[in-house]
Amino acid sequence: MNIDEYFMNIALSEAKKAYDKNEIPVGAVIVENGKIIAKAFNKKNSTKVVCNHAEMIAIIKACHVNKDWRLNECTIYITMEPCPMCASAIQQARIKRVVYGCSSNNIENSKLINDILNNSAEIENGILENECSSLIRKFFNGIR
Amino acid sequence: MNIDEYFMNIALSEAKKAYDKNEIPVGAVIVENGKIIAKAFNKKNSTKVVCNHAEMIAIIKACHVNKDWRLNECTIYITMEPCPMCASAIQQARIKRVVYGCSSNNIENSKLINDILNNSAEIENGILENECSSLIRKFFNGIR
Repeated sequence: MNIDEYFMNIALSEAKKAYDKNEIPVGAVIVENGKIIAKAFNKKNSTKVVCNHAEMIAIIKACHVNKDWRLNECTIYITMEPCPMCASAIQQARIKRVVYGCSSNNIENSKLINDILNNSAEIENGILENECSSLIRKFFNGIR
Repeated sequence: MNIDEYFMNIALSEAKKAYDKNEIPVGAVIVENGKIIAKAFNKKNSTKVVCNHAEMIAIIKACHVNKDWRLNECTIYITMEPCPMCASAIQQARIKRVVYGCSSNNIENSKLINDILNNSAEIENGILENECSSLIRKFFNGIR
């Protein structure tokens, strides 16, 4: 297991907490100089707050930890491709690297994400892709 | 003064609170069935949290007030064109109408906003445009 898989595995543990609470299972971890400074899972439904995606909660925590809205030295690990809201928060926080597990399978979303993060962050995907996407599929199959 | 100008004027009062706290002066008001359910001003710098734009704080408040992440019946009044983060939060909250005062004067931003809000919300701009943009100009002239 390499370093990206190590942190993605922790993001996946966060996603499983969301799954257990009947939330779309997405988890996020923010790492600065090899140290986790924030982790979170999706709480949109349980809190009834539209902005409470895993990434947003993790970014807010990281800003509090660092007492700074700039997170220049950070990498964010997300189990799924972010939405435009989260991508824009990542870009505005100047997060330098975005690593995600599985795609959103939404071409419009992917195009927007690329336009938003264009040139601001290094993007990597497909880390623990099967584990991340299986959890999402299991969640949506359970709903049907 | 028509109804849109009335609510934009209140958003402008919020923006002035941001100005007084040395924040980029942007204010937001969320109206449901003619009643204000949330208002807020930009607090990004004072709180050191990258997501604390006026619109985001107002949306979170409105979700709390309505105990729902859906804000289908709401109009959001913003003194300035939103960024992609806020536009995406507006779209995900299903806010039906977005009224803003002045443009961001950023073509890339405007294009992204249109792509994000495309077909999800009615957009109107230029309401109290001079007042909204003067406040922004005054802020940035003061910094220089």
